[in-house]
Amino acid sequence: MGYTISEKIMARASGNEHVHADDILWVDIDRAMMDDVLGPRLEIDDRLREMGVDVWDPDKVVIISDHYTPPANLHQANIVKFTREWAKEHGISRYYEFAGPCHQVMVEHGHVLPGSVVVGTDSHTCTYGALAAFATGVGSTEMAGVLATGQTWMKVPQTIRVTWNGELPERVMAKDVSLKTIGAVGHSGATYKTLEYAGDTIQRMMMDERLCLTNMAVEAGAKAGIVGYDDVTAEYLARFGVSQRYDHLNSDPDAVFCAEYAFKAGELAPQVACPHEVDHVCEAAEQSGVEIHQAYIGSCTGGRYHDLKMAAELLRGRKIAPGLRLLVSPASREIYNQCLREGILEVLAEAGATVLASSCGACLGIHSGTLADGEMCISTTNRNFIGRMGSKTSSVYLASPVTVAASALTGHITDPREI
Amino acid sequence: MGYTISEKIMARASGNEHVHADDILWVDIDRAMMDDVLGPRLEIDDRLREMGVDVWDPDKVVIISDHYTPPANLHQANIVKFTREWAKEHGISRYYEFAGPCHQVMVEHGHVLPGSVVVGTDSHTCTYGALAAFATGVGSTEMAGVLATGQTWMKVPQTIRVTWNGELPERVMAKDVSLKTIGAVGHSGATYKTLEYAGDTIQRMMMDERLCLTNMAVEAGAKAGIVGYDDVTAEYLARFGVSQRYDHLNSDPDAVFCAEYAFKAGELAPQVACPHEVDHVCEAAEQSGVEIHQAYIGSCTGGRYHDLKMAAELLRGRKIAPGLRLLVSPASREIYNQCLREGILEVLAEAGATVLASSCGACLGIHSGTLADGEMCISTTNRNFIGRMGSKTSSVYLASPVTVAASALTGHITDPREI
Repeated sequence: MGYTISEKIMARASGNEHVHADDILWVDIDRAMMDDVLGPRLEIDDRLREMGVDVWDPDKVVIISDHYTPPANLHQANIVKFTREWAKEHGISRYYEFAGPCHQVMVEHGHVLPGSVVVGTDSHTCTYGALAAFATGVGSTEMAGVLATGQTWMKVPQTIRVTWNGELPERVMAKDVSLKTIGAVGHSGATYKTLEYAGDTIQRMMMDERLCLTNMAVEAGAKAGIVGYDDVTAEYLARFGVSQRYDHLNSDPDAVFCAEYAFKAGELAPQVACPHEVDHVCEAAEQSGVEIHQAYIGSCTGGRYHDLKMAAELLRGRKIAPGLRLLVSPASREIYNQCLREGILEVLAEAGATVLASSCGACLGIHSGTLADGEMCISTTNRNFIGRMGSKTSSVYLASPVTVAASALTGHITDPREI
Repeated sequence: MGYTISEKIMARASGNEHVHADDILWVDIDRAMMDDVLGPRLEIDDRLREMGVDVWDPDKVVIISDHYTPPANLHQANIVKFTREWAKEHGISRYYEFAGPCHQVMVEHGHVLPGSVVVGTDSHTCTYGALAAFATGVGSTEMAGVLATGQTWMKVPQTIRVTWNGELPERVMAKDVSLKTIGAVGHSGATYKTLEYAGDTIQRMMMDERLCLTNMAVEAGAKAGIVGYDDVTAEYLARFGVSQRYDHLNSDPDAVFCAEYAFKAGELAPQVACPHEVDHVCEAAEQSGVEIHQAYIGSCTGGRYHDLKMAAELLRGRKIAPGLRLLVSPASREIYNQCLREGILEVLAEAGATVLASSCGACLGIHSGTLADGEMCISTTNRNFIGRMGSKTSSVYLASPVTVAASALTGHITDPREI
């Protein structure tokens, strides 16, 4: 009997030759990531003091202040200050601030390797599975235990395999693949399971697109999202000087999956997730009656280089609808600077977009674009729960960057192929 | 006996042939400006309803949501929404949102003409005096009266004439001229007076620099800041198709000034206003021991095209000090786009700056860069009162954009001529 990627990683991390889904294990943590919201300031500092222990290995810890930068009030400012000082006090040199959302910073700075086990104090930590790592979100109390011991317990997840084959139509993106998948699996359909993406559609996807898929895995309840290691992974890691191959990090042909889904990419139309659940998915064209106040392109799931480039291609030489605001927040300072150098930000700004710094702010309504009562937003972010981006009477539709751009042009939800 | 610019404008606006300082008059308002903070949502809507009257002339009203864009919380978002809808309901077509701080938007959209009387619900309304207008801030209740009647009462201000002659040294800017002047006049030295700038130094200043001078006039307590009409004014207005000359809008040679100050530009060094008063002014070089956490280039007094260009010239090819954040918020969307097109934003970003959207946020600590407890900031903004940019235990030093840029490079307050 063969093994899934998750089983292979769990075996290595627990020091066992073979493990199977549902085994409960202690695993060594290769990398612990904390953000400012759920990082040191919550439980963690108190619990470590209480236990009289320090961080097990500061070199394995990364801290990223991203939700509260730039701070929107004194409370947020003091949290960032506390986080910054805590990192320094505990000898954690990998501290980032004003660098952008943590999940993009983690991968673009080479902090994630294939086969590693990563835990983070943010639910979208599952993003790193695009690099064939096993990554998952943990609470602050759990993180205190990880920092004290370098380990945590895991039940080896069963794996749902999602296979996409064929060519995606023009202006159909990974976000559409993700939403279609979540619509089928359901928002709790993958609870405590790994959502593994496979098939030739996925194999052709660049890393920016794969990161969108794995980021969204938790929206189906998944413990982890994962894509097997291949040449795209190798090429992405080469920029950090990683030449080692990890070809074994693919599920074996005879691995056991608890469920399998198969989709044809060629049939996929641009999708939207309607309020107020990520699995309320339908085709964008079906929602063309919905008028939009705010369009948002950004976040750890929809603000990468390829996302902004695709949006800019649609917006070039056009102007957004009057009375609508298009906010763009690149997913990191590096992406911001690259898009600036390449003229992508200029295209967006000339179309009428307001370009914001790289931040998590608007995605969860804590600054930089909070929605007012009754406002409608179409967004490349990953959650459309009630009140997620602001008022409890506002509504959020999730869509790909190119669908958001198209909707910003018309003022209502729009299939980008109609532009 | 001759007349000051203020007397000439007040005479025209009150329908009198001659008026003198200290006369109390009813004047016609040429333009009423409201922002989101102190605009329709405060008193104004209630009072107009109570009186059963509507806006006297919607074409003379401009409304600009600038402090709360992008909104940082639901309260701010709902204020912007209210302001937007109020403008629409009252037929006010000159409504701006996400366009940048109101005072820059007002001048760059041609809403201010020489000789006009402008009132605005923001204390830095005095900015428009750079165009030889008489402009001053009013409270919300006063604005309700203006909206109802199109008039307000004024005591004709006495005028303090401030004369600067000579060439400013390299890397010495209008902000330094302004701070040096306010240091001499005192923070209440010009209360209910017009601060009129004159001399060949001022005559050579481009409009961006003059707007900084008049913006800061209220920091000496002035009712208005003013610069006489000349070719620079004419050239600035030509972009709006204004060909009429207003050469009479200069104080007569025999006008009466209540006080006169004279400065030599050639002797001026870069200045800073130390915490917590704008008139606590000294040379930047004297404060070189002060370490900085945040450097801020932006606002209606320090985020114009020339400001960002001067900062970029200093920062080109250099990197800001580690651990320090440099935030840049262009004073309007137009300035943002111009700086983007011309590569200025790229220079700033490559140096390590975080470029924010155009907003008032950080200047008054309400979002986009609020200071934490004990943090030190050097800023191009116009106020350094206790708690102005965030925590009551934070400190703000005011300086020119080029001095802020220099300090961002070294991590401590720095005379830009030392770079």
